[in-house]
Amino acid sequence: MSRIYLDYNATAPLRPEARAAAIAAMDAVGNPSSVHMEGRAAKTIMERARAQIAEAIGAMNADIIFTSGATEASSLALAGRNLQAAAIEHEAVLAWTSSDLPVDANGLVTVTDPASSTLQLANSETGVVQNLPGGLAVIDATQGFGRIPFAFEWSGARAAIISAHKLGGLKGVGALIIPQGTDVAAQLLGGGQEMGRRSGTENITGIAAFGAAAAAAAHDLNTGRWDEIAELRDLLEQTILDGSPGTQIAGRGAARLPNTTSLITPGWKGETQVMAMDLAGFAISAGSACSSGKVRTSKVLAAMGYDADAAASVMRVSLTLDTTRDQVLRFAAAWIAKSVKHRQKAA
Amino acid sequence: MSRIYLDYNATAPLRPEARAAAIAAMDAVGNPSSVHMEGRAAKTIMERARAQIAEAIGAMNADIIFTSGATEASSLALAGRNLQAAAIEHEAVLAWTSSDLPVDANGLVTVTDPASSTLQLANSETGVVQNLPGGLAVIDATQGFGRIPFAFEWSGARAAIISAHKLGGLKGVGALIIPQGTDVAAQLLGGGQEMGRRSGTENITGIAAFGAAAAAAAHDLNTGRWDEIAELRDLLEQTILDGSPGTQIAGRGAARLPNTTSLITPGWKGETQVMAMDLAGFAISAGSACSSGKVRTSKVLAAMGYDADAAASVMRVSLTLDTTRDQVLRFAAAWIAKSVKHRQKAA
Repeated sequence: MSRIYLDYNATAPLRPEARAAAIAAMDAVGNPSSVHMEGRAAKTIMERARAQIAEAIGAMNADIIFTSGATEASSLALAGRNLQAAAIEHEAVLAWTSSDLPVDANGLVTVTDPASSTLQLANSETGVVQNLPGGLAVIDATQGFGRIPFAFEWSGARAAIISAHKLGGLKGVGALIIPQGTDVAAQLLGGGQEMGRRSGTENITGIAAFGAAAAAAAHDLNTGRWDEIAELRDLLEQTILDGSPGTQIAGRGAARLPNTTSLITPGWKGETQVMAMDLAGFAISAGSACSSGKVRTSKVLAAMGYDADAAASVMRVSLTLDTTRDQVLRFAAAWIAKSVKHRQKAA
Repeated sequence: MSRIYLDYNATAPLRPEARAAAIAAMDAVGNPSSVHMEGRAAKTIMERARAQIAEAIGAMNADIIFTSGATEASSLALAGRNLQAAAIEHEAVLAWTSSDLPVDANGLVTVTDPASSTLQLANSETGVVQNLPGGLAVIDATQGFGRIPFAFEWSGARAAIISAHKLGGLKGVGALIIPQGTDVAAQLLGGGQEMGRRSGTENITGIAAFGAAAAAAAHDLNTGRWDEIAELRDLLEQTILDGSPGTQIAGRGAARLPNTTSLITPGWKGETQVMAMDLAGFAISAGSACSSGKVRTSKVLAAMGYDADAAASVMRVSLTLDTTRDQVLRFAAAWIAKSVKHRQKAA
């Protein structure tokens, strides 16, 4: 039986358009900083991708600084600024911010001073989508861009962080988006690439794939493909709730990403659920992917007021664009069977 | 007539082995931090590449920290340390160091205190290979690794910087190599990848290609392929000197990379030479690739004692593994014809 991948929020399957763009870019030999024809060709590939991303995220008059991912973009946007944030933000954000903005039971954050705050567009674990106040210092749009409508220039934010591999591009490339001409204190110094804001020869392959993925994601969003996925997500949730009445869904009272559900089954550790489902042929997660492979208590759920038992008993299922009704039902059936076994063992 | 690429030192053509490894890695959907089978498969690809690089660079007992390139690896190795360096180092090194170590007329650097100094293995513009003293704080092996014998653990250095695209991998990936267990002050914070030393989801595609490129480069080095290229480089130099007696070769009195020549033709700006040769179908450079596309006076040649006219009149030709005798002779003939025209115009 073939495996079923339901961990889009950890990393999305590579889109065919991105794969093709990456392979085409591999055949461009030049360094985009070189002045000869080969260099100019590489630069053209990069600038085309930049335009595709600008269009997909509504940033036609903004500057897009390519980085090695959302983690580097977070550092570029946040280091040394001591902005305010909530504890539900990604570790790459919290490394540079406070974590004391209030979070309600549905995972929604209250921002008091947008100009000195950073807020995520959507949460990787629960999928909860924030109501973004105008004038935020930084929006972490890593989860959300490509799956829900978002336009940088409409947001009124001073910066946005994005990542390629969360919308079907390659791992290892992201960007910081800022209004044109904004000063940025460069962190990587050297050749002066990206208008002096981020030195280092650009990841042309990853950038080309990022552009193609962004364009394809915008198209999918506009044509309602995620609406179909939201229906499958709802089917999954209802099936699981019917089969496991003790299970709760985090953030269900808020708007959420169409593909994400965070299922809390107190007394059954998320880590155990992930392993059991992995053996059964399904890739899911117990929260954010983290470095060590260790799965800890969810800080996101703790911030939403769940107790330690609940926050350690969470499973995140994040559907892909290719997820089918059959896969969802197979997953639900397998999970319910495991949950029954678990309850019998625990009893 | 097809183009002839002679700008290996700006960026090397992608090796077929690297291309194949990159494409294979694209089909691995998982995030290497995920615990499920797909995550473990991505991690396996990454660890295989790490082992390939360790073997190619003689670092079997060292730690290899993947970065977004040599620029980031330089920052990780050098920021905040105020090490000593010579003015011939790359801008990504000089951003963090002094630039006052003495350089002789052949481009060789005198290091007085290795433990507080950084030194390059080879120079990107002249190809000059340094005599590395033991115990250097940092070696920038970006140019050199894969083209001349170098083993990290034999060097006695505390760190080495490498880049994938300078030996036939993809742009946007590099590494810092350090003795096992060395403390590193992480700069990118977040998920804690790379044993907490460099957060951010890893560039699996680029890393897979890096490993394959390193293995292929080691094989080429061991089988003498660069010796054949050195003969072509010598043929190029002799042909040009015969046809243009006023031309000088920088660093000719020192050991050099087998593929690199730096030709100084006083009175004929390097930028003009690059443009003329580009139109004639050849990709060369007037020095290091730099961000703006502007070609400036070579700081490397200035540090070697050349006057401003000479340092602005340099052309770097860097041969690839696929360069042929026919291509070299065609290049030399085209360049000599242009140089004659230039002298006639100038006269």
